[in-house]
Amino acid sequence: MENPSMRSLWLEQQILTYRSEVPSPVPENGKALIRILLSGVCSTDLELVRGYYPFSGIPGHEFVGEVVSSPEDPSWIGKRVVGEINIACGYCDTCKSGLTRHCENRKTLGIYEWNGVFADYLVLPLINLHEVPQHVNNEMAVFTEPLAAAHEILEQTTINQNDRVLIIGAGRLGLLVAMVIQQTGCELEVITRHEKQSIFLEKRNIQTISEQNISSKKYDIVVEATGSVDGFAQACKSVCPRGRIILKSTYKGNSEVNFSGIVVNEVTLIGSRCGSFEPALRLLAEGKVDPLPLIEAIVPLEQGVNAFELAARPGVLKILIKPG
Amino acid sequence: MENPSMRSLWLEQQILTYRSEVPSPVPENGKALIRILLSGVCSTDLELVRGYYPFSGIPGHEFVGEVVSSPEDPSWIGKRVVGEINIACGYCDTCKSGLTRHCENRKTLGIYEWNGVFADYLVLPLINLHEVPQHVNNEMAVFTEPLAAAHEILEQTTINQNDRVLIIGAGRLGLLVAMVIQQTGCELEVITRHEKQSIFLEKRNIQTISEQNISSKKYDIVVEATGSVDGFAQACKSVCPRGRIILKSTYKGNSEVNFSGIVVNEVTLIGSRCGSFEPALRLLAEGKVDPLPLIEAIVPLEQGVNAFELAARPGVLKILIKPG
Repeated sequence: MENPSMRSLWLEQQILTYRSEVPSPVPENGKALIRILLSGVCSTDLELVRGYYPFSGIPGHEFVGEVVSSPEDPSWIGKRVVGEINIACGYCDTCKSGLTRHCENRKTLGIYEWNGVFADYLVLPLINLHEVPQHVNNEMAVFTEPLAAAHEILEQTTINQNDRVLIIGAGRLGLLVAMVIQQTGCELEVITRHEKQSIFLEKRNIQTISEQNISSKKYDIVVEATGSVDGFAQACKSVCPRGRIILKSTYKGNSEVNFSGIVVNEVTLIGSRCGSFEPALRLLAEGKVDPLPLIEAIVPLEQGVNAFELAARPGVLKILIKPG
Repeated sequence: MENPSMRSLWLEQQILTYRSEVPSPVPENGKALIRILLSGVCSTDLELVRGYYPFSGIPGHEFVGEVVSSPEDPSWIGKRVVGEINIACGYCDTCKSGLTRHCENRKTLGIYEWNGVFADYLVLPLINLHEVPQHVNNEMAVFTEPLAAAHEILEQTTINQNDRVLIIGAGRLGLLVAMVIQQTGCELEVITRHEKQSIFLEKRNIQTISEQNISSKKYDIVVEATGSVDGFAQACKSVCPRGRIILKSTYKGNSEVNFSGIVVNEVTLIGSRCGSFEPALRLLAEGKVDPLPLIEAIVPLEQGVNAFELAARPGVLKILIKPG
């Protein structure tokens, strides 16, 4: 059987284009073919275009879709799903230890050796799929992946009601982190740079603060969600002795760091990446986190290149892409 | 009453000299005058001479001594003591939270605004003092401070018998760290550079390994005890995903770090400095850690400048200084 064709965005040598005819993927055993209902543009996608990773193919990793084919287990067909982005080998030492998200041979949806979601269809292993609860609509479900990444912080460290927490960076991810951390009942403040971010947070009774008003060595936990050296320096200044800094963004190239402060103040740095989908879907299903106000635009797939341009503008929150 | 004079080493503008007549300190209320029985040269002392901190005065912070005067509580007189090196204010927010070792206004024995131990006498607050158990001799007791720093790791994080642990750096501190971590029953390996270090460790049934034989991403916990950028790079390479790196040395100036690896592999970095004296004294009293073979020489105070030169030679372990 010949591959049917589909539409997609395509990244090659840091140039993003729209293609009206690329081969549609075909699922092998243990995998499913999924029709994309809605996808989201993430800062990592923008970094890919800037050459952060040398990825060629279909970018994108945030999606909600419907299973249209599943040779091994047809019971998946027709189900609305979201999917974990790390495709694990299942047999390396790290997989065996249970840390499949850190598989030594992993491929990563739309980031590394696996075509992504800015297309009509994608293929993922069944093991990566999670059915979306019926009353979580597509616009909410598409946030499962970044919400899981935000929630990962609470899987790595404990935040309690006595903790003073500062979030540096109120972008797409920072705002999701704020909504997740608010659930802990801690004393939370978020540094904002755009009025839109402040309005979003204040509506949710989350305190905002400007950079100039940050007290030094005040916070038990600081979440660095800017991915910039300045953000890291701010985190080091504002964290208290024996406090924790969560590194929630990737950093391009090397950073200059004064480690003596980290040693003398006995600070803990915690690198934080992808998280489990179950708690993220629960937060959405229980209405504890409402990401809908983050959506700035829903752009048709044919306009996907514009969607990237829009998402790259300062202060712009979530841009979704919709085939159809 | 005029101050009696005493002998001491003296550091000024990175020049270390021996002085036969400096004023002996006088204890106020709440403090004790202590006659030094034995003191130890630490890498931090060598760094002070290299200009790491702009300290002027009597250096040195590892000691065992005998209380000779204690105006507020004469019951201390005659007791053999070791002393914690951070002199806390007792009233700042950090002190109130119980973290007196991180006091915002702290002075530090022989390092910052408080004269140290390479002298006949020193003064310390009574609250800093710990009586030495009778059967812990002076040569052992003088290791209490660095042993407490080594043990601090176990106060900050849990190491269990399933953990694979690597220690990078088998100097004075690294070897104490190795002996402390051996107590946990974990799978321990130590990178050595000098034969003397390997012999020391092998006698204690601690496995040694050369840098070239380190497997990448193997270790659950890596203790970086070199304070060098190379050591840190090695730690990043050898730690497993979700693993921990303990930063046990201070670092001069800024270091170039690739943070993306820390985020992607979700590594935790833990800065680690001074520790509690109680567990260190217990390890010595119970004979669980025997630091005596670390002693390379005991040098009279008058020869203190030579003691520093000796301690700075590559691979040289502990040099003690003895007034008397």
